Amino acid sequence: MEKKNREYLEALRHAMKEHGIDAVVITSTDPHQSENAPAHWRGREWLTGFASINGTNGTAVVTAKDALCWTDSRYFLQAEEQLQGTGFKMMPEDGPEAVDLIDWVTEHTEGGQTVGIDGMTFSVSLAQRLEQQLNDNGVKLDTDFPVFDYIWPDRPARPANKLFVHDEEVVGENVDSKMTRVMQEVKGELANAVLLSSLDDIAWATNVRAAGDIAFSPIFVSFLFIDENRRILFVDREKLTPEVEAHLNKYNVEVRPYDDVKPFLKTLPKVTRLLLDPEKTARGIYDAVGCTPVFGGAMVSKLKSIKNATMLSNIAKAMEKDGVALVKFFMYVEKEFASGKLSEVQLGDVLTGYRKADKSCVDNSFAPIIGWKGHGAIVHYEADEHSDAVLSGHGLLLVDSGGQYIYGTTDITRTVSLGGDPTPGERHDFTLVMKGHIALATIHFPQGTTGHQLDVLARQFLWKEGKAYFHGTGHGVGFFINCHEGPQSIRLNTNPTPLEPGMVMSNEPGIYLTDQYGIRCENLITPVVAEDTDFGRFYRFETLTLFPFDRSLFETEIMSEAEIEWVDAYHRMVRERLTPFLDKEEAEWLAAKTQPLKK
Amino acid sequence: MEKKNREYLEALRHAMKEHGIDAVVITSTDPHQSENAPAHWRGREWLTGFASINGTNGTAVVTAKDALCWTDSRYFLQAEEQLQGTGFKMMPEDGPEAVDLIDWVTEHTEGGQTVGIDGMTFSVSLAQRLEQQLNDNGVKLDTDFPVFDYIWPDRPARPANKLFVHDEEVVGENVDSKMTRVMQEVKGELANAVLLSSLDDIAWATNVRAAGDIAFSPIFVSFLFIDENRRILFVDREKLTPEVEAHLNKYNVEVRPYDDVKPFLKTLPKVTRLLLDPEKTARGIYDAVGCTPVFGGAMVSKLKSIKNATMLSNIAKAMEKDGVALVKFFMYVEKEFASGKLSEVQLGDVLTGYRKADKSCVDNSFAPIIGWKGHGAIVHYEADEHSDAVLSGHGLLLVDSGGQYIYGTTDITRTVSLGGDPTPGERHDFTLVMKGHIALATIHFPQGTTGHQLDVLARQFLWKEGKAYFHGTGHGVGFFINCHEGPQSIRLNTNPTPLEPGMVMSNEPGIYLTDQYGIRCENLITPVVAEDTDFGRFYRFETLTLFPFDRSLFETEIMSEAEIEWVDAYHRMVRERLTPFLDKEEAEWLAAKTQPLKK
Repeated sequence: MEKKNREYLEALRHAMKEHGIDAVVITSTDPHQSENAPAHWRGREWLTGFASINGTNGTAVVTAKDALCWTDSRYFLQAEEQLQGTGFKMMPEDGPEAVDLIDWVTEHTEGGQTVGIDGMTFSVSLAQRLEQQLNDNGVKLDTDFPVFDYIWPDRPARPANKLFVHDEEVVGENVDSKMTRVMQEVKGELANAVLLSSLDDIAWATNVRAAGDIAFSPIFVSFLFIDENRRILFVDREKLTPEVEAHLNKYNVEVRPYDDVKPFLKTLPKVTRLLLDPEKTARGIYDAVGCTPVFGGAMVSKLKSIKNATMLSNIAKAMEKDGVALVKFFMYVEKEFASGKLSEVQLGDVLTGYRKADKSCVDNSFAPIIGWKGHGAIVHYEADEHSDAVLSGHGLLLVDSGGQYIYGTTDITRTVSLGGDPTPGERHDFTLVMKGHIALATIHFPQGTTGHQLDVLARQFLWKEGKAYFHGTGHGVGFFINCHEGPQSIRLNTNPTPLEPGMVMSNEPGIYLTDQYGIRCENLITPVVAEDTDFGRFYRFETLTLFPFDRSLFETEIMSEAEIEWVDAYHRMVRERLTPFLDKEEAEWLAAKTQPLKK
Repeated sequence: MEKKNREYLEALRHAMKEHGIDAVVITSTDPHQSENAPAHWRGREWLTGFASINGTNGTAVVTAKDALCWTDSRYFLQAEEQLQGTGFKMMPEDGPEAVDLIDWVTEHTEGGQTVGIDGMTFSVSLAQRLEQQLNDNGVKLDTDFPVFDYIWPDRPARPANKLFVHDEEVVGENVDSKMTRVMQEVKGELANAVLLSSLDDIAWATNVRAAGDIAFSPIFVSFLFIDENRRILFVDREKLTPEVEAHLNKYNVEVRPYDDVKPFLKTLPKVTRLLLDPEKTARGIYDAVGCTPVFGGAMVSKLKSIKNATMLSNIAKAMEKDGVALVKFFMYVEKEFASGKLSEVQLGDVLTGYRKADKSCVDNSFAPIIGWKGHGAIVHYEADEHSDAVLSGHGLLLVDSGGQYIYGTTDITRTVSLGGDPTPGERHDFTLVMKGHIALATIHFPQGTTGHQLDVLARQFLWKEGKAYFHGTGHGVGFFINCHEGPQSIRLNTNPTPLEPGMVMSNEPGIYLTDQYGIRCENLITPVVAEDTDFGRFYRFETLTLFPFDRSLFETEIMSEAEIEWVDAYHRMVRERLTPFLDKEEAEWLAAKTQPLKK
């Protein structure tokens, strides 16, 4: 089957010829290095026809002879299928056949040729790696080849969603205070101004949000410039409301059109030492800078990761709302299971409905992952009309979901047994995962400890039986902002960021048996001071998430007294915190679900 | 009190003037970056009068005005005392008052001036850091200012100890095989020759040893050059024996005088791509290289870290010998304790005697650490005539020691209670340490796991009670070579080296209560394959060391069944392995010491 994509490809090659470009590299990101680019920047998807779940996986390379699209092993099958008839060939980014994209481009160009990129959709650091290697080979990199300005006739406009203010009462810190803290950090990097490109950094710094610009995160398309005297937000005027204008005005934040950011940067004098994060800033932005650039770390990311006391108490509120939605959802699942009509996609909608019934819940914090039996073993599974499974017989149901509440962002995974008793294998694996979850949840650790130093605690019981999971144990979680944020993490991979009070992280070990079941147990946790001793300050984790684990899945025979007591104490807390918000039937259901494991 | 050192300092300043040197930096190492430099290279010690335990801590800086000696916090008190009247002032390398040496030198020199160093006692990388910072300031670095050639009249000669062959039967690999493997690694780094400077690398590659060149390690002063056709050992002729000459000859290893290494390097043609480890190679060597230098990793260190099956079975033999010596030693301690005459220094001699009674034991693998009560809490304690404590009353005795057997290097720490029952606090802390020791000893882990990912296992039980130790949990151990070797380690610090079968490491958690007691429990361990599963290959640790832990110190109430069973099984193994080598009284003593904890 021939597809339209062949025509697009022809148009692209025409544009390349016209601009003297021998090869083009096309990423899937936007000028803000967003995890989920808005439709306006999904040109790579339009061009190649390959659309991964969140649209950001996939990098295309086109030369006069070749048209290729790189993706990683999670998407090999899907990409092979979707690329058929498009003129594009799939290239593996990882796995045994992996081909390095930059190496490929280097090998397929020669001295005197030019490789083109749209500098606005390449980070400074990625573009630099590419440029370095090409230059070593005598090949030029043209960073001003905005390919979709030339060949995408029906390109969607930039998102026009209205902004709104994230209430200071909820956030616990006003814009003055935040921007002052940012400028302190900027000076610490020996700079005197900063341009923020990362949309979650900007939403944090301005206490402004929008719904719809970026899927599952209430952030908005903009740039933010700050120096000693000025705070300038570059954003499309149509997104403003009188409320937001008044808010920005109150904190001396000037608004200028989004497209003015590059001309503005060109006018900055040499004495301006502009801090840029090379991982988060587009090369196109860097190219436009007229002043002295200073490359520095992700300091807003660090500030943003520490939640203040107001935020933490609001997160407690969000957790209660989330717990109530989950009580209703799992009661529904239990009641309706026998009907044989429940399906993964439908349950996703039901769960979304229960969450959004609370008016403080703006959206899901990511597309719900509802995996029945073998689907639960696909770590990044998202049910669609093709894959959708109807729940029948006995099996485990994995539900990983979360909400964007104005009081905080939630992310929880529960695995439950449906349709009769769980098998001994299911119970055993579930308990190994829970033992790891509990070991991490109960550790105390000295100030300065990093996530990679703790990760093994969650894996040890699986490892002892030759089992493992191949994802991180914990990611940072934002506050009514991205569900995944840095800089901290709890992974095997080295991460130099110490875990500190105010950081919110997930604790989500799992086990995945292909075609059988997936088990993951996820709560959000935050470090609090445990004690000060002669040996220094020690932290422990406080668990924030409020919903019981499936009692039928615990093999108590392999649990220590302390582990059983942890589960029982956690369940007591869940019951006490949620019951005030439940009706009688719900309260009874929860009481039964939170009975002690200890006989 | 005035000391001779003022005269030396005057002579040094005279030499500086003569050679146009404005400031000199003097390290404490030798041309091989040895942990324990031979007396010939201990000029910094002679000059300043400050001698840290192993002589390698301390860096002096002298200008026309200032004379300073940097050291770390372990030696602050000692250095202050020893530097009195020498004209040198102590400078802190770490701690709250820390001064960076390179920063200091940069700030105290100015454009046009020259800083001098003896390039033979600076690694390439350290010299480069210094040079870079000086050059940025317009200051020149002269790397050919061999200060002790000018001002040390009674300088000791280089060590003249005789070499001997480390039997191929014991090592399990001949010199041909080793050098072929080295050349494979060299080619992997796109080089075609290598110069080894590290003495343990050379001893490993040549299967040659000597006793006395370097304290506590049977390595010898030399350089080794290898390329496709040549193997050249640069070593003082007087160290050779007919046996060693025949051995080297058999494997086509040519011998040239030690001092010929620099002239030889000058003659190498440009096509020779000579691999040098910038951390292990002296700047003076690098300056002499006439061919093309290639900087590469510590690949011999990696080869050396993996012990083959022959070595491992010989290590088992060394452990038996070591265990027998310790049985005799601890029986002696118990019998003689009541005499009130045992002292730390004297016990060190007794222990050394029991080890050396076996003719395969050439030396201690480090100075024995025998710490009674509060002395046990000083991590790097070495008793001397001033500090020596007599054992009386009740207390804990910490004994950290090891032997250089031709069958392998040992390193073991035991903590025992003497003079009446241990206190509840002593038992509790000991048991927390042991629980960590056991958690590490019993973990299984997937291929690719590194030491920093496992370290927390040994610390978790202490941390939960607000306690901690501030040293690594495990270091690599050599085979009849350095007791501390890389590249692997088990520490909180990041180390990218995966733990692999054949590597030998220590497992030595501890707890130290100032002025009360120190507890450390150390065995050597090695990874072995546990199982291959759908999730990949898993390793577990096998414990190599053979000596019981003090049963009176276990608080079994806080131990799990599995932990108690581990101790009992370990003790059974110790008894079974050692008993054949013991007389009746010793066997009975060991039988009592290895009774099960489980009632």
